[in-house]
Amino acid sequence: MDSSLKKFFYPKSITLLGASSKEGSIGYEILKSIKSFQFTGKIFVINPNANKILGTQCYSSLDEVNESIDLAIILLPRKFVLQGLQDCARKEIKNVIIITAGFKEVGGEGAELEKELIRIAKENQIRLIGPNCMGVINTEALIRLNATFAAELPKYSQIALLSQSGALAAAVLNTISQTGFSFGQFISVGNKADVNENDLLEYWAINPNVDVIAMYLESFENGKKFFETTKNISSKKPVIVLKAARSEAGTKAAISHTGALASSDKIVEVVLNECGAIRVETVEEMFETASTFQKIPIPRGNRVAVLTNAGGPAILLVDQLEKNNLRLSSLSDKTIKRLKEILLAESSFGNPIDMLPGATAEIYKTASEILLEDENVDSLFVIFVKPVMIDSFDVLSSIAVVQKKSVKPVLISAFPLPKFWDKWKEIGNEDAVIYKSLELPPKILRHLCGRKPRIEKLTKSVKYEQKLSLNEKSYLQKKLTAKGIIPQKDVQAICKKLKLPIAQSLLVKNFQEAKKKISSLKFPVVLKVESLDVIHKSDIGGVIINIKNLKELRSAFNQIIQNLNKNKISEKNVHYIIQEFVEGGTEVIIGGFRDPSFGPVIMFGAGGKLVELIKDDNFTLAPVTKSKAIDLIRQSKIYPLLKGYRGETKVDINNIAETMVICSNLINDFPQIKEFDINPLIVKAGKGKSKIVDMRIIAEQ
Amino acid sequence: MDSSLKKFFYPKSITLLGASSKEGSIGYEILKSIKSFQFTGKIFVINPNANKILGTQCYSSLDEVNESIDLAIILLPRKFVLQGLQDCARKEIKNVIIITAGFKEVGGEGAELEKELIRIAKENQIRLIGPNCMGVINTEALIRLNATFAAELPKYSQIALLSQSGALAAAVLNTISQTGFSFGQFISVGNKADVNENDLLEYWAINPNVDVIAMYLESFENGKKFFETTKNISSKKPVIVLKAARSEAGTKAAISHTGALASSDKIVEVVLNECGAIRVETVEEMFETASTFQKIPIPRGNRVAVLTNAGGPAILLVDQLEKNNLRLSSLSDKTIKRLKEILLAESSFGNPIDMLPGATAEIYKTASEILLEDENVDSLFVIFVKPVMIDSFDVLSSIAVVQKKSVKPVLISAFPLPKFWDKWKEIGNEDAVIYKSLELPPKILRHLCGRKPRIEKLTKSVKYEQKLSLNEKSYLQKKLTAKGIIPQKDVQAICKKLKLPIAQSLLVKNFQEAKKKISSLKFPVVLKVESLDVIHKSDIGGVIINIKNLKELRSAFNQIIQNLNKNKISEKNVHYIIQEFVEGGTEVIIGGFRDPSFGPVIMFGAGGKLVELIKDDNFTLAPVTKSKAIDLIRQSKIYPLLKGYRGETKVDINNIAETMVICSNLINDFPQIKEFDINPLIVKAGKGKSKIVDMRIIAEQ
Repeated sequence: MDSSLKKFFYPKSITLLGASSKEGSIGYEILKSIKSFQFTGKIFVINPNANKILGTQCYSSLDEVNESIDLAIILLPRKFVLQGLQDCARKEIKNVIIITAGFKEVGGEGAELEKELIRIAKENQIRLIGPNCMGVINTEALIRLNATFAAELPKYSQIALLSQSGALAAAVLNTISQTGFSFGQFISVGNKADVNENDLLEYWAINPNVDVIAMYLESFENGKKFFETTKNISSKKPVIVLKAARSEAGTKAAISHTGALASSDKIVEVVLNECGAIRVETVEEMFETASTFQKIPIPRGNRVAVLTNAGGPAILLVDQLEKNNLRLSSLSDKTIKRLKEILLAESSFGNPIDMLPGATAEIYKTASEILLEDENVDSLFVIFVKPVMIDSFDVLSSIAVVQKKSVKPVLISAFPLPKFWDKWKEIGNEDAVIYKSLELPPKILRHLCGRKPRIEKLTKSVKYEQKLSLNEKSYLQKKLTAKGIIPQKDVQAICKKLKLPIAQSLLVKNFQEAKKKISSLKFPVVLKVESLDVIHKSDIGGVIINIKNLKELRSAFNQIIQNLNKNKISEKNVHYIIQEFVEGGTEVIIGGFRDPSFGPVIMFGAGGKLVELIKDDNFTLAPVTKSKAIDLIRQSKIYPLLKGYRGETKVDINNIAETMVICSNLINDFPQIKEFDINPLIVKAGKGKSKIVDMRIIAEQ
Repeated sequence: MDSSLKKFFYPKSITLLGASSKEGSIGYEILKSIKSFQFTGKIFVINPNANKILGTQCYSSLDEVNESIDLAIILLPRKFVLQGLQDCARKEIKNVIIITAGFKEVGGEGAELEKELIRIAKENQIRLIGPNCMGVINTEALIRLNATFAAELPKYSQIALLSQSGALAAAVLNTISQTGFSFGQFISVGNKADVNENDLLEYWAINPNVDVIAMYLESFENGKKFFETTKNISSKKPVIVLKAARSEAGTKAAISHTGALASSDKIVEVVLNECGAIRVETVEEMFETASTFQKIPIPRGNRVAVLTNAGGPAILLVDQLEKNNLRLSSLSDKTIKRLKEILLAESSFGNPIDMLPGATAEIYKTASEILLEDENVDSLFVIFVKPVMIDSFDVLSSIAVVQKKSVKPVLISAFPLPKFWDKWKEIGNEDAVIYKSLELPPKILRHLCGRKPRIEKLTKSVKYEQKLSLNEKSYLQKKLTAKGIIPQKDVQAICKKLKLPIAQSLLVKNFQEAKKKISSLKFPVVLKVESLDVIHKSDIGGVIINIKNLKELRSAFNQIIQNLNKNKISEKNVHYIIQEFVEGGTEVIIGGFRDPSFGPVIMFGAGGKLVELIKDDNFTLAPVTKSKAIDLIRQSKIYPLLKGYRGETKVDINNIAETMVICSNLINDFPQIKEFDINPLIVKAGKGKSKIVDMRIIAEQ
């Protein structure tokens, strides 16, 4: 394992620039943390005004230190930070953490200063963490580094933890004695001036002391890189992500439907899902999930047996299991027979199995073992509520033994008297995973259950191959020169070139021109207004369908002109599209847009009127393979209609998928495309041909 | 306040039947609880085999006690319980709690025994709680009764708590020293042989020591009664309900769409909402909500200001606020100006207001006061994460003062060091409401915000008046004699009588008959098969639309006959409906069914193909007034289409509402109707007339 980040976590020597002798200040408290956690390396404290702080000799400047130093931690006031970093450069320190705040996050001068820091770091090959961060922790016995101002000391485990927010990390560290959260390595990345989540992912991927990676993120520094990195890692080490800032405004001022439907959080959801990360909602869920992944095996499936000594909690648990898409096992006859031999006759032998309050440690153990032997049980959930005459310690110790031995996951929720926990901790039963609630563990079990199918999906995912030909590319390049909305005639030309099934149509200036050219189309037709001033044609009465003859066409023109006047839209720049009228079929939408962080994205869902009605917005990252496109269609709400609803003939979804692949190539290969949508694509049952009735492409301005 | 339940909570004297001298037994532990909580009344312990238990003199039988007794608690083994109750009857004790288990919940002999208990109680005007329950607690200083086997003693508050599950109550009571949950009166109702949640609601409604009622329920004893009782109470005292068993199977074997869509939990949701109860998801949410309602005022609206000293937690909070439909206030210019005068320039002055870690107690107080004075702020949310140099006690004390004084709600989430809480408890700052998480408080704030509109809705709800005429009733009575699916000709007759707008149609046996009678209809028409063997006509190709002439009608007949043969359905019992073809319009569904617990229910939503696609299932209890029907239409997913989508003409929803009112009368007045649905009702824009294309009525078998 070698990486430029290694010395952040495994320094043999550190220096503190800005250590202070003032009790209560950060410069004092961090040194106190380092000393009380008994860092195994050397500490060089720099302070020109003090002789000793907390018993440690001070140097008046870094230049005075004769030994080499692995890691510098800068706590200086903002105005001295730049000088501090230069000192580090001169001393050839390659790893620096800047805790001081007041840089990019405050804008203005602070932001300028941060740029300077980055420049100096780059010039001197320094890896920089922060500024505006909270420090670093490594709880490994050979290191014991706690360079944060958190007073509480976490226990060691193989979990690595990143927090974008220093305060959130502080809140977590402050309560660690109560929650029992543990980790091996912790880093607070602050402003991510240099080192970001992607660097740390790569480092932890190769660090053998890290089994599980957990991250609190507010933003992605480079979404595409995050996606690729996590995709490579997550089948080996679970990557658990708490992504905050869900409510961040989505793609603003989106012109297409697709853009309007895509909130940034929706895309984050898709990205995390597709790269195999596990998304959690709360800090508690993040830690408990990480800790469970370390200790509990992954189940084969989602069938759960529930064993309890109390009815009410089991009912609440079943509600939560269902909410998390977990199923209750149908127990085999043999299992029930065996349980009947050991349990009271009045017990409940369905699933949950309620053994009644009298169940002893021995009964719990035997019943658990019987259930785990059942083929229909993928995991076992044990509930224990302390009854008056039963000893909690006996029962939980015996279940803990079963949990440790079992190749199937055994989850335990226990409600003993409070004093129990002290005794439990004392005895050191820390390997056991016991939850104190009924709400969180089903979520964690869902994460465990999702792990196997996710890994399978990641490993078998087909490489994308289809591409546009050179000829197609150069043709399209010419058609995609406009800024903003691409003119319909170019859209039509692009469709023809790419063999996208656009409905036959004419572009005309007025009825007279239409009359002359109409012979190339067959009635019935549709008349649509075409103008850069009109974004949603239907809204202003700019579309008239099912026009059966020339006479009707003339009055349709008149009607639309009236509607334009009503809406105070000048006729001057207006054109008209006359299009074959596509009757029947199901309306779907295919869309795409370029996410600022993750790049091109493809959408599929119910089209036409249903778009805003049912929000059938299914996204995936572009480029898509045909099989990925089919997956997306299958997860849509409209899919039941496509596969033949109530005895109707089904639609050829292969055909839709092929259209999606072409569109995905389009947005993937032409960075000038900002958004597009095809709405509706009318798809027909059986051998009927799909038709694009409307397609819009919007270029970057 | 007088009620037959009063002495369960305010006994002057109690007796224990089945007290035991065996440490660890329930009979011993309950007596221990009673004594250690220092019950203020007299205790008579009955045990023929002991002289003294825990220092209390025993009587060998109840007959030996010369004084009158208010409350008996029976802990006897099951076989002696009946005798015990008879002893109580003889002694003229009118309030009895039976803790012993093994009755209805185990079925068979136990269930029979429970019936006997009920009989004896009725005969002797005894109010009975249990069996299979956990006891009673009253923490009021004048009473101090803890007749449960929970060792932990709750603090007093004006909350009354009911638990259907003894074990859940035990789990809660076991951890009360950690959670700090408080209540005045607690009862575990067990099997509800006599006293149930409705009785207790009525009692607590009139008890002046109860301000908030909280209930954990697994089932409703009498849903209609619960609804009416809660509706009467909830505008005066908040009723908080944790209803478990969500996943309980819904209306089984439902024939109509409505029945299939109605899970029992969906109806519970509707009922709780309409009677003004507050539904919570977890035990913790139940207690924290109850406790907050006691101490914090109700906000005028849902606009929240967030004040923090840390960015990360504020971001997580904002995510949660949004999830709970709360909005961030747009602060007034004046507020921002005033804040700028007292906060650091680098602070964030949007909302959340991030004062940075340096914010002192004084700053927190002043900033809070400024925010609370802003017209645009309905409630204030304060976050505090302990920074190194700031004293948690100072800050939280000063915010607590603001919280107590403010007429607007002030919610506080704090993350001090763990040792803080002990000091806080010691000083007795218990009136302050401070949460330790960021996830739960936004839920609680949602409950607070919902309170005002709910009360308004309850108090202004119009009384239902429209009814069917006697003439209509007697006519319908004759048409509703069949069991199962009511024949179409009767459905048609019912629609005509009630002026429901059913599409014109003919019922014929074959094409020959159709040919003779067709002159009464105009082409185009629809041909539909009508047979008790065919439930979903479309599924087997039993519907052909848009038939333009006799020739097409003939081939439609042939086609359907072919399809019947293909599906092996005998032509023998088959009839055919020829119906006018209703073109265009939007398809909606109106349905209804009889819930076993809550009685008749009405549904409205998207109809036709969309029914199962988008699950637009909106329910309300019948009978409905027109304004309630309009509310239901407005909350549907299809409503945006009805109100005129993208410039289209809107539908007359009054007209739909009137149809709903008639249907609601129908199911309300005729208990033999089990389910019905109208699917689709085709509604037309503008002045177009709505038409019922298909209606089915299913009678109780």
